[in-house]
Amino acid sequence: MNYQRFFEEAIDQLHAERRYRVFADLERIAGKFPRAIWRSNGRAEEITVWCSNDYLGMGQHPDVIASFQEAAGRMGSGAGGTRNISGTNHPLVELELELADLHAKEAALVFTSGFVSNEASISTIARLLPNCLIISDELNHASMIEGVRRSGAEKKIFRHNDVAHLESLLQAAGRERAKLIVFESVYSMDGDIAPIEAIADLADKYNAMTYIDEVHAVGMYGPRGGGITEREGLADRIDIIEGTLAKAFGTLGGYISGNKAVIDAVRSYAPGFIFTTALPPALAAATTTSIRHLKNSQTERDAQKRQAERTKQVLADAGLPVMNSATHIVPVLVGDPELCKMASDRLLGVHGIYIQPINYPTVPRGTERLRITPTPFHSDELIAELQAALVETWDALGIPYGAAGRPSVTENERIVSLLVPKSGG
Amino acid sequence: MNYQRFFEEAIDQLHAERRYRVFADLERIAGKFPRAIWRSNGRAEEITVWCSNDYLGMGQHPDVIASFQEAAGRMGSGAGGTRNISGTNHPLVELELELADLHAKEAALVFTSGFVSNEASISTIARLLPNCLIISDELNHASMIEGVRRSGAEKKIFRHNDVAHLESLLQAAGRERAKLIVFESVYSMDGDIAPIEAIADLADKYNAMTYIDEVHAVGMYGPRGGGITEREGLADRIDIIEGTLAKAFGTLGGYISGNKAVIDAVRSYAPGFIFTTALPPALAAATTTSIRHLKNSQTERDAQKRQAERTKQVLADAGLPVMNSATHIVPVLVGDPELCKMASDRLLGVHGIYIQPINYPTVPRGTERLRITPTPFHSDELIAELQAALVETWDALGIPYGAAGRPSVTENERIVSLLVPKSGG
Ligand SMILES: Cc1ncc(COP(=O)(O)O)c(C=O)c1O
Ligand SMILES: Cc1ncc(COP(=O)(O)O)c(C=O)c1O
Repeated sequence: MNYQRFFEEAIDQLHAERRYRVFADLERIAGKFPRAIWRSNGRAEEITVWCSNDYLGMGQHPDVIASFQEAAGRMGSGAGGTRNISGTNHPLVELELELADLHAKEAALVFTSGFVSNEASISTIARLLPNCLIISDELNHASMIEGVRRSGAEKKIFRHNDVAHLESLLQAAGRERAKLIVFESVYSMDGDIAPIEAIADLADKYNAMTYIDEVHAVGMYGPRGGGITEREGLADRIDIIEGTLAKAFGTLGGYISGNKAVIDAVRSYAPGFIFTTALPPALAAATTTSIRHLKNSQTERDAQKRQAERTKQVLADAGLPVMNSATHIVPVLVGDPELCKMASDRLLGVHGIYIQPINYPTVPRGTERLRITPTPFHSDELIAELQAALVETWDALGIPYGAAGRPSVTENERIVSLLVPKSGG
Repeated sequence: MNYQRFFEEAIDQLHAERRYRVFADLERIAGKFPRAIWRSNGRAEEITVWCSNDYLGMGQHPDVIASFQEAAGRMGSGAGGTRNISGTNHPLVELELELADLHAKEAALVFTSGFVSNEASISTIARLLPNCLIISDELNHASMIEGVRRSGAEKKIFRHNDVAHLESLLQAAGRERAKLIVFESVYSMDGDIAPIEAIADLADKYNAMTYIDEVHAVGMYGPRGGGITEREGLADRIDIIEGTLAKAFGTLGGYISGNKAVIDAVRSYAPGFIFTTALPPALAAATTTSIRHLKNSQTERDAQKRQAERTKQVLADAGLPVMNSATHIVPVLVGDPELCKMASDRLLGVHGIYIQPINYPTVPRGTERLRITPTPFHSDELIAELQAALVETWDALGIPYGAAGRPSVTENERIVSLLVPKSGG
């Protein structure tokens, strides 16, 4: 038994499949977002980040940073304990009230990450229900899949956003069986949105519980940043709304919101919540500042929407294969893992533009892409630069433009419908 | 199917068993540690925390806070992405180098918590080995148990710190089968230490991999704070050393260290590492400052050791049932969940001393206790106050002193040996 060998082979396999990941070493520059210092081979140079999930740039908002610094100065750098054993700090208590209010729910519970909130909550809720059947969208995030697995419950997968398929699964299970429907509002790799109202209607009809991941929507949609459920007036029709603090809110952590009983049960039974150190007070305080700001200000959401639309338009105008997206996410199709990686390397090395390649398993093979996330701080000039850099890269590497260049996708037929008409040139 | 009912019943059950947890709402006071503001029923009062896992008070160290604030001012409040997608910030890269150096390993990998580091690493390592058998100490932490479960691998449990039992399991599995031994160095509820050298010898003899959780030891033991493995010169005999950044180092996060191949494999295959936002640069920078400080300074470790010894002595002198502990942890036996909760409530309400009751399932029934963690900042005066408050509480509630008051423990015979001779008065 040579242990070393198995780890080396696992790594070799990734190299062979061109899926080995090298992390870009970045240093963000507060006040100059989306500019950052990129370090590589002993050199440091300033570049533009085009794939941050700090969607609104709140991570550099002066009020957020000030509140972060103030709380650290007053309360120190850590919580010092689990929630139960000396770690429940006052800013965290306030944050949970703020989040419950954001989604108009009775209560909220904060976790160390969105990943942990999904894993711990889905598994705990399903385990507390007798013979629960989990019905899960096929494109759900890894953290939700981990929660489903960890629950030990039976699961059925419905085709992505396919309400008819979902209904057939609900019907087969019957009204009497406990059922938990888990899905996302904004799917972050394609930027499409779930048919939330139709799902809520089905949940009513077949008496199922509903759990939605609004990780890519909170802060971004709805008049107060309550997500797609707020924008569409559907928050009260969904039992549990989950979100992250680490994307539009610009800090770290995750949460669920819902009625008192379910939140208290997860609080009391989820190992991933109980047996871990609480978030530091400074993070909680900064997050509350960020959420409150976005509850009252439309400026960031409006500017972000404008720049996202403009980016789609400007790239499509150049014939680049912008994939159809109903949201702020701008995926540009490459369709090949190696080309995707080469495009990303060239953008960074030649153009000082950082966009991470998104390859399998994050997206299906054949749909490898550059996933671009414009923020309010990506100016028209930066968008023009991006267009020129992408065109240069597409030409240099011979990546297909628009429909003409669609890869032959056997694995995922969806891809055809993902190309916007505009990009077909 | 009335969903609400099941959550309410789950909560009712905790109330019935007197296990329902109410979190103390605390506000730490940097510069005045272990003092904190406790909020309850609309009132706020200053109290002394005696159960923090900020073991050395590094969470309030001026250099740590300064580095936290400086990094936040320069780089903002969040990482803005997963490690792979724009979230790898330069302070995190430096932190990983620092941690590898701390344990004299080739590499280290940082996670959002110690919980996630255990869960993600144990499950991933075991899954990468063919037909792996996990051999796990019976008192391992919940996060390790989750990792074992999630791996799907076969597991065997050995009696706590029982090397003979461990050997029989290794022998039965045979040299050829892949085997991963997972255990802790300091067990945090009893404060006892694993026979690390004997376990490493067995691992050599039967060709097993070893994984140690040093969460309660890093920063605290060894000339540079490298944990019990450093203190005993055994770091190179253990394959993977895991630790937290949220206890002695005073911030948030967790990590593993080991050889390049195993670290790279976990980095590349663990969903709990890949699909979650990276730690904010400010936390990483503050942690590196803390680790570097503790690598060079013995002051905190020495003072902490002195105050922990003194606390044990002073409490035992009063006949209080201090349980035997080889470490900085001072458990005082109550032996009944309700009394334990009442003692904690009385200490807080009457004496302004906060010590969370530790009840089942964190410890076996019949061994409910107050778990006291003296730090360098718990002065002799505070220790004298603690003694007086505990004696008053023991008398007021009729909690048994020392050996005479041992509860009749059927569930866990170990308890008898856990009482220090001194406390038998
Ligand atoms: C849909 C979805 N849910 C949950 C998460 C996890 O959130 P966090 O980064 O806070 O762990 C992510 C990405 O990180 C995500 O894309
Ligand atoms: C032994 C042990 N391992 C791991 C953890 C988890 O570490 P963290 O608090 O960083 O999640 C804890 C406690 O919190 C622990 O006691």
